[in-house]
Amino acid sequence: MVRAGIIGASGYTGVELARILSNHPKVELSVATSRQYAGQKLASIYPSLQNIVDVNCVDKPITELLDLADVFFTAVPHKTAMAIVPSLLEAGKKVIDLSADFRIHDHLIYEEWYQEHTAKKYLSEAIYGLPELHRNQLKKARLVANPGCYPTSVILGITPLLKNKIIDVDSIIIDSKSGTSGAGRSAQVGTLYCEVADGFKAYKIGSHRHTPEIEQELSALADQALKVSFTPHLVPMSRGILSTIYAKATCKIDDDELSSLYHSFYQNEFFVRPCSQGSFPATQYVKGGNYCDIGCKFDSRTGRIIIVSAIDNLVKGAAGQAIQNMNIINGFDENLGLEMVPVFP
Amino acid sequence: MVRAGIIGASGYTGVELARILSNHPKVELSVATSRQYAGQKLASIYPSLQNIVDVNCVDKPITELLDLADVFFTAVPHKTAMAIVPSLLEAGKKVIDLSADFRIHDHLIYEEWYQEHTAKKYLSEAIYGLPELHRNQLKKARLVANPGCYPTSVILGITPLLKNKIIDVDSIIIDSKSGTSGAGRSAQVGTLYCEVADGFKAYKIGSHRHTPEIEQELSALADQALKVSFTPHLVPMSRGILSTIYAKATCKIDDDELSSLYHSFYQNEFFVRPCSQGSFPATQYVKGGNYCDIGCKFDSRTGRIIIVSAIDNLVKGAAGQAIQNMNIINGFDENLGLEMVPVFP
Amino acid sequence: MVRAGIIGASGYTGVELARILSNHPKVELSVATSRQYAGQKLASIYPSLQNIVDVNCVDKPITELLDLADVFFTAVPHKTAMAIVPSLLEAGKKVIDLSADFRIHDHLIYEEWYQEHTAKKYLSEAIYGLPELHRNQLKKARLVANPGCYPTSVILGITPLLKNKIIDVDSIIIDSKSGTSGAGRSAQVGTLYCEVADGFKAYKIGSHRHTPEIEQELSALADQALKVSFTPHLVPMSRGILSTIYAKATCKIDDDELSSLYHSFYQNEFFVRPCSQGSFPATQYVKGGNYCDIGCKFDSRTGRIIIVSAIDNLVKGAAGQAIQNMNIINGFDENLGLEMVPVFP
Amino acid sequence: MVRAGIIGASGYTGVELARILSNHPKVELSVATSRQYAGQKLASIYPSLQNIVDVNCVDKPITELLDLADVFFTAVPHKTAMAIVPSLLEAGKKVIDLSADFRIHDHLIYEEWYQEHTAKKYLSEAIYGLPELHRNQLKKARLVANPGCYPTSVILGITPLLKNKIIDVDSIIIDSKSGTSGAGRSAQVGTLYCEVADGFKAYKIGSHRHTPEIEQELSALADQALKVSFTPHLVPMSRGILSTIYAKATCKIDDDELSSLYHSFYQNEFFVRPCSQGSFPATQYVKGGNYCDIGCKFDSRTGRIIIVSAIDNLVKGAAGQAIQNMNIINGFDENLGLEMVPVFP
Repeated sequence: MVRAGIIGASGYTGVELARILSNHPKVELSVATSRQYAGQKLASIYPSLQNIVDVNCVDKPITELLDLADVFFTAVPHKTAMAIVPSLLEAGKKVIDLSADFRIHDHLIYEEWYQEHTAKKYLSEAIYGLPELHRNQLKKARLVANPGCYPTSVILGITPLLKNKIIDVDSIIIDSKSGTSGAGRSAQVGTLYCEVADGFKAYKIGSHRHTPEIEQELSALADQALKVSFTPHLVPMSRGILSTIYAKATCKIDDDELSSLYHSFYQNEFFVRPCSQGSFPATQYVKGGNYCDIGCKFDSRTGRIIIVSAIDNLVKGAAGQAIQNMNIINGFDENLGLEMVPVFP
Repeated sequence: MVRAGIIGASGYTGVELARILSNHPKVELSVATSRQYAGQKLASIYPSLQNIVDVNCVDKPITELLDLADVFFTAVPHKTAMAIVPSLLEAGKKVIDLSADFRIHDHLIYEEWYQEHTAKKYLSEAIYGLPELHRNQLKKARLVANPGCYPTSVILGITPLLKNKIIDVDSIIIDSKSGTSGAGRSAQVGTLYCEVADGFKAYKIGSHRHTPEIEQELSALADQALKVSFTPHLVPMSRGILSTIYAKATCKIDDDELSSLYHSFYQNEFFVRPCSQGSFPATQYVKGGNYCDIGCKFDSRTGRIIIVSAIDNLVKGAAGQAIQNMNIINGFDENLGLEMVPVFP
Repeated sequence: MVRAGIIGASGYTGVELARILSNHPKVELSVATSRQYAGQKLASIYPSLQNIVDVNCVDKPITELLDLADVFFTAVPHKTAMAIVPSLLEAGKKVIDLSADFRIHDHLIYEEWYQEHTAKKYLSEAIYGLPELHRNQLKKARLVANPGCYPTSVILGITPLLKNKIIDVDSIIIDSKSGTSGAGRSAQVGTLYCEVADGFKAYKIGSHRHTPEIEQELSALADQALKVSFTPHLVPMSRGILSTIYAKATCKIDDDELSSLYHSFYQNEFFVRPCSQGSFPATQYVKGGNYCDIGCKFDSRTGRIIIVSAIDNLVKGAAGQAIQNMNIINGFDENLGLEMVPVFP
Repeated sequence: MVRAGIIGASGYTGVELARILSNHPKVELSVATSRQYAGQKLASIYPSLQNIVDVNCVDKPITELLDLADVFFTAVPHKTAMAIVPSLLEAGKKVIDLSADFRIHDHLIYEEWYQEHTAKKYLSEAIYGLPELHRNQLKKARLVANPGCYPTSVILGITPLLKNKIIDVDSIIIDSKSGTSGAGRSAQVGTLYCEVADGFKAYKIGSHRHTPEIEQELSALADQALKVSFTPHLVPMSRGILSTIYAKATCKIDDDELSSLYHSFYQNEFFVRPCSQGSFPATQYVKGGNYCDIGCKFDSRTGRIIIVSAIDNLVKGAAGQAIQNMNIINGFDENLGLEMVPVFP
């Protein structure tokens, strides 16, 4: 058994890692940290895990944790992650970092959107952990930068268009909608039930930190620098991201061809499910599972292609993808422990 | 007292008309029809109205209703409306039609998106009932085509940009999100609680019937034919529409100027509330009220203007706007009976 | 115009007072306090009130507020209220206190469930503000102890049974369910959207502080000391309380008689709406309104009477009832400003 | 591999069976029927199952299905089930019936609450499928009457009290609350999103058909006939049942003793999780899993014991328990395929 540690186990992403790992045949959760709940059982904070996950939260310096696990998931905020990850790597551990700290290759861009980067020297070896794009590099990685939730839905949605060079790269508009778990479990007025329920709003218009991450990956795919409009919205639901993506087609295409393109592009990808032609995804059909469902449409009236992609932000958008990456870097079957069926209704 | 009749009182729009009219100082609800609930009190179908609205639903031919009211709200599906409205007009009644039947001036366009039009001769006198745009014409109208819910949010959101000719008219993309009441009260699997809750999806991509209505009004504002991309989505909430609108700016503008433009454009409009600069609307702040809240942003990175507008689809998007129009055609103060404060949380 | 002040205007109860008062024909909101948001417009914290409520939050000692209003609503937590109310009364102001501090006549019972009482001398003149029970005393009151939300639903539900002595007073079991707004607007993990949505739970079983308040009023009605089992639950909705009340019948009764009893008992009460026989209330039908809907059933199999009552916890359970009380102590029509129709759906 | 058939696969219970079976190591779904969706893939009706469940819905007479499976789950309404089950049994198949048709031993009681029973001769061999109570009998069963959702939560909650004879059997009051999936997937106004969301109500007070089922099992446990008050309520959530149960204690007991009693009673039951003392269950912690969480409290003020139990109505309350029963009658490990971790948030 590979021993896995979760740094920051008591947030929604941390506990989702624990949920999925509890069914993993080759990995055991050997250590879990939480500053706030140190000394408590993780299952007492999250009674959903009672009798299933038997681990106590600890709050110890990273140096005291090194012997306790072979691979670490760092599920802590950006800035906190870059203070921890170097010690783990230097001790020979493999790291899947779920923060933003190692996602942006260019530290200047990182610093423009976040703050100073204090572990720049590890940026070059970090692999952006979208297996469908970077699987080969991931196999040899010891530091995986696990993608953001919005970028996962967007990049998987748009890759076949960019790879096939059938859209105007300056015309990309991304209108994304996320459930509330994306905001985390810290006590804030803005995510109280009464503030979110029965309502809908946009936020951080034109300024969300996932923008440079999306642009980095899309630019690489397009082989040229591009910029996107990206607007996130908050949906009164717990889990799920749906991204509606608009781009101008640069060639004649019809819905048949578009649908074929997606089906053939993703035919070997277990976790990407192109919808049948004329169908579109819904977040309720991916809830609890590691899937990305994608639908597409060519609007001949306007000459635009519209892509809709859906994921569970905590699974394919965070913990599930992290475990997919862990499987890859450990040489396991990529799907191991990840075949949870989405729960509907 | 003006006597008002509601044709189709037992749907969500019909009952919202009844709710608002119950507090109107110059109008009384004199007749309400419902095929399904004939013979029952409206308040027994909607116990929210118990002791407040005392009217029985009837199911009679339109000819037997003519004497019972001075003004009629037709809150029935398209096609049904065009079969009723001519009789009402010919009997000298004023009509606010909440269906789509008289919104599209050009019957060929109507027939392309709906079905054959059987009351074409009334199209030319129908006034599109968006008071903020067509108030003067409405004052003399006897047939008001009450706008669709999505178009109301979109047109109010984009008008200042088109009037000031600061956007590329071929670049307009509208990503709208609606609560479930927009789908009406008929028993359908797709709008069951379990199908909608905790989920989010797009529907009728590139093919929603509100598209030609939006294009008609925006083309008139732009003084040239234009087409838009319009994608509606279903939000797990009962009431509310939020539209996120993207367009390429054709001139230099900053957020200060943009915000000023909206504030000055709407300074005399009671029911349009531009947000303070840097703030954006949320549907939970307009729930139950007749307001349209609008926020705007210039994204200098991409050169696009992003507009976000929010309404309650059953009020400003249907019943409230219909009563606003009724006030206008009756010469009443436009706000009469409409000063309900949105209910939050 | 009577000038009203709200102490603690930025909580959900405070803002609901502001919402309702904005439509009150004889009262103006002259001052609103908020420690947290001092200096900000109330409408900037709650954009639902934009263009409707034009008041700035202040944070001043109570002595500097005395001249600014004739009547004060104290919408602050218990303990805070008892530190403020005496100054207001001594300055000759009328006070409607929405906290628990003046609801329990016997300070020993108060101190058993809350903490030390530091304003005992005002307990004897405080009138428990349930107009349907204590209207005559309220007319002369200068200090109204506005009832708790759960007690309002329970006492109105059970009063006809106790007054008519048809239940065993030792058999009363109250199973209540509340929306999340009852927990207030402070940032807490327990009321985050993700913790509450799509779930249901009981809390404070056998130990909720509304228990002694319920017992005080029911004991008075029964003319003997009684104890109840009271279990509150948290429902994934914003507004509403539904109480299901069980008691053993002490005489033969049938559903006809039971229904007649409720209809005749409440025939002159505008805000209490007994359901028609065989019908039962639902919180969605009272949302936003000041009504208490009540249904009743005699279960002949078990000899128990089951009562179900529903209110909007922020209106009849807090702000609406407070304004009803204010109307009474000011000699206004009791319904003034309170005829908002519940908003459904 | 055992071949399993689902009769009635397109309802919420049917599809939940398919979801769970897809991960079962010893069972394959070999046939699925649906009148409404015959000819369609189950995964096209429920896209959550895309690429996971590969079965087409058929609509054939039962005689043509007999060869296609070894064990059948009948997930059809009562009355329909009793018309199918005899043919299955006579063909030597094992049957887990998820309807009510074989739950009530006494056909006269069945006929009082439902309608005529046309397969009475199978009643005596049907075993009530609550493994925690009837495991030994189930091992030899060929017809399992899978318990109702409410009864499962209630019986597991109250069994330790009755077995230990510490409550007055005439004092039992059960106040249950269910998510909306319990109402099934048929198109009805009452379960539309807008009718259910943001609201709460009781229904079928004193007359719900799960009452005789609860009374049968509790009477057997108490060794005497007893009657209960049972009130179901509808919660705005998709999954989950929480039952709050009240009974008069007949002896001195404290919370320590009560908690110990539950922990020891259920110490060998994998799927029953007594909460730690002072904690109570919440439906959000069992969502998607086959667990029943139980909390208990002795209220010394009133002498009543209050039990709170929570299950996922579609899993432990239906499909999960059915598969647990299928494991038992096939001699498999009882937990096989059922170790899905509840999904929270």
